[in-house]
Amino acid sequence: MRIVCLAGGVGGAKLAEGLQQQLEPGELTVIVNTGDDLELHSLLICPDLDTVLYTLAGIANPAQGWGVDDESWRVMDQLALLGEDTWFRLGDRDIATHLFRTERIRRGERLTDISLAIAAALGVPSNVLPMADEPVRTRVRTDGGWLDFQDYFVRLRQLPEVREVRYEGADKSTVTEEVRGALNDADAIMLAPSNPIVSIGPILAVPGLVAEVAAARARGVAVLALSGIVGGKALRGPADRMMSSLGHEPSALGVARRYAALGLIDKFVLDTQDAALEGAISALGIGTVVTNTVMADSSSRANVAMRMLAAALEVRTAAGPGQDG
Amino acid sequence: MRIVCLAGGVGGAKLAEGLQQQLEPGELTVIVNTGDDLELHSLLICPDLDTVLYTLAGIANPAQGWGVDDESWRVMDQLALLGEDTWFRLGDRDIATHLFRTERIRRGERLTDISLAIAAALGVPSNVLPMADEPVRTRVRTDGGWLDFQDYFVRLRQLPEVREVRYEGADKSTVTEEVRGALNDADAIMLAPSNPIVSIGPILAVPGLVAEVAAARARGVAVLALSGIVGGKALRGPADRMMSSLGHEPSALGVARRYAALGLIDKFVLDTQDAALEGAISALGIGTVVTNTVMADSSSRANVAMRMLAAALEVRTAAGPGQDG
Repeated sequence: MRIVCLAGGVGGAKLAEGLQQQLEPGELTVIVNTGDDLELHSLLICPDLDTVLYTLAGIANPAQGWGVDDESWRVMDQLALLGEDTWFRLGDRDIATHLFRTERIRRGERLTDISLAIAAALGVPSNVLPMADEPVRTRVRTDGGWLDFQDYFVRLRQLPEVREVRYEGADKSTVTEEVRGALNDADAIMLAPSNPIVSIGPILAVPGLVAEVAAARARGVAVLALSGIVGGKALRGPADRMMSSLGHEPSALGVARRYAALGLIDKFVLDTQDAALEGAISALGIGTVVTNTVMADSSSRANVAMRMLAAALEVRTAAGPGQDG
Repeated sequence: MRIVCLAGGVGGAKLAEGLQQQLEPGELTVIVNTGDDLELHSLLICPDLDTVLYTLAGIANPAQGWGVDDESWRVMDQLALLGEDTWFRLGDRDIATHLFRTERIRRGERLTDISLAIAAALGVPSNVLPMADEPVRTRVRTDGGWLDFQDYFVRLRQLPEVREVRYEGADKSTVTEEVRGALNDADAIMLAPSNPIVSIGPILAVPGLVAEVAAARARGVAVLALSGIVGGKALRGPADRMMSSLGHEPSALGVARRYAALGLIDKFVLDTQDAALEGAISALGIGTVVTNTVMADSSSRANVAMRMLAAALEVRTAAGPGQDG
């Protein structure tokens, strides 16, 4: 069963890891947000790609939700001594990834090939693809003006209200052959419980990508989304406040509305805590699955993934066997 | 007393450190070879500049002769795991220097300003200047063809015979205002016991630099050189073999001849082991100082520096007080 997962950082990585547990090697492709990439200390840093790669490699830092386990901070300490800003923490092992990637970008290699090379070197059994090879940079407008995403997210700890979001460069980005191929071959497509605006949003902003998902759906491929907002609160990060300040309801219903408005999904998976929203979500014309969606550990990730795979299968069965080609 | 020292890596750093011990803060300016700089893992690495900076900051690794003390290798180990070549060893603290520098080069800053900033951050009381801001790359021709310098020096451990040496880019490099200013203000100029071909050679290849030294000499400024070849053997590195394979005598006399041919020096400092060469060196029309030149520890560095400062003073005294302006 070939599954494509659209993912941001931590939430996306958790679902991807659950799916990877359930699937055979090579069956999972994760298309990852690169809108929060940044250049710092001459390094190209791709936080979401790395979180997904490290998580699927089994070397993610379980406590901090980003970076590598068994990490040290020798480079960063010395950079601080040299007077550099170190608000964006980079561990030593993590820096090796950035050096590897930056050198290859400098040589003209594609981010896609570089990500596949890192995945191979780390022994990741899934395909981890950037949403595009061209640079896309998410920027947010706050009352203090436009900010680079990580400036808002890490340096200012998501404190300012977000008034507007832009995916700079998205209009010039293109769906890669690898992303197109994965979507073409997919048996199901899953939107991870990442921030719908700044994690899934940039992916959907790559011209042609929504059309590819829609085409897959038209062929009978199940498209599911999992809410990252549970009980009106983002499981992690500022998604709830951001939804609110941008005029969306900060709830699973708000997330479902957003994806339904794009005609993107067949089914929406929401937490048992949000069971009361099921009716309103069904009224959007999409199916619902109510389950425990909080992925605190490895086995809960596998459970959520299993529920989503089962739900995908139901969609396909409902669509009829003829759709299978 | 304002002293300018022309230096390569380890030998240059030792003399510079001895001089720094003898001088007031700010009195020493070290003009450092950048011909052995390299780009690796997307980093601009300046081995000689760093060796001088670390040595003058008191943080050099005493055992290996390059890099920082209290060093770790976390980034390098992870780069190896990612399949990268790691023949050029970069410690974690050292990498911070390269990130700091590379980022500033990327922003368009001059290598001179960057080096001064690193020196300031590390508390170096001397001025450490690259020989030029433009990239110069020393390449060596071996029987296997032309090699980048570090490819020959580190990867191939200086095993191949060197048939020819080029300082690529030197013709387009220029004497910086800082280098010119230091040479203009110098009371004495000292050529460190670094490899005359691949350490001092690139510095002298910067167009106009030899003329600046000659102009200083014409004003009565003492110019001294210290032999890095003692008893026919290079104290470190392949200088003896390189002199030989390029048709020069692999001895202190060979080194003296080279500098004398450029009309560059007043006095040549040679080791007591080479006392027998004193006559032949005097015959080149330059003065000699015979002393113990091996700088094994901090106090021997100070002693050599003191001897050289005394010898410089003698040259000035001989030139007459009128030269002082």
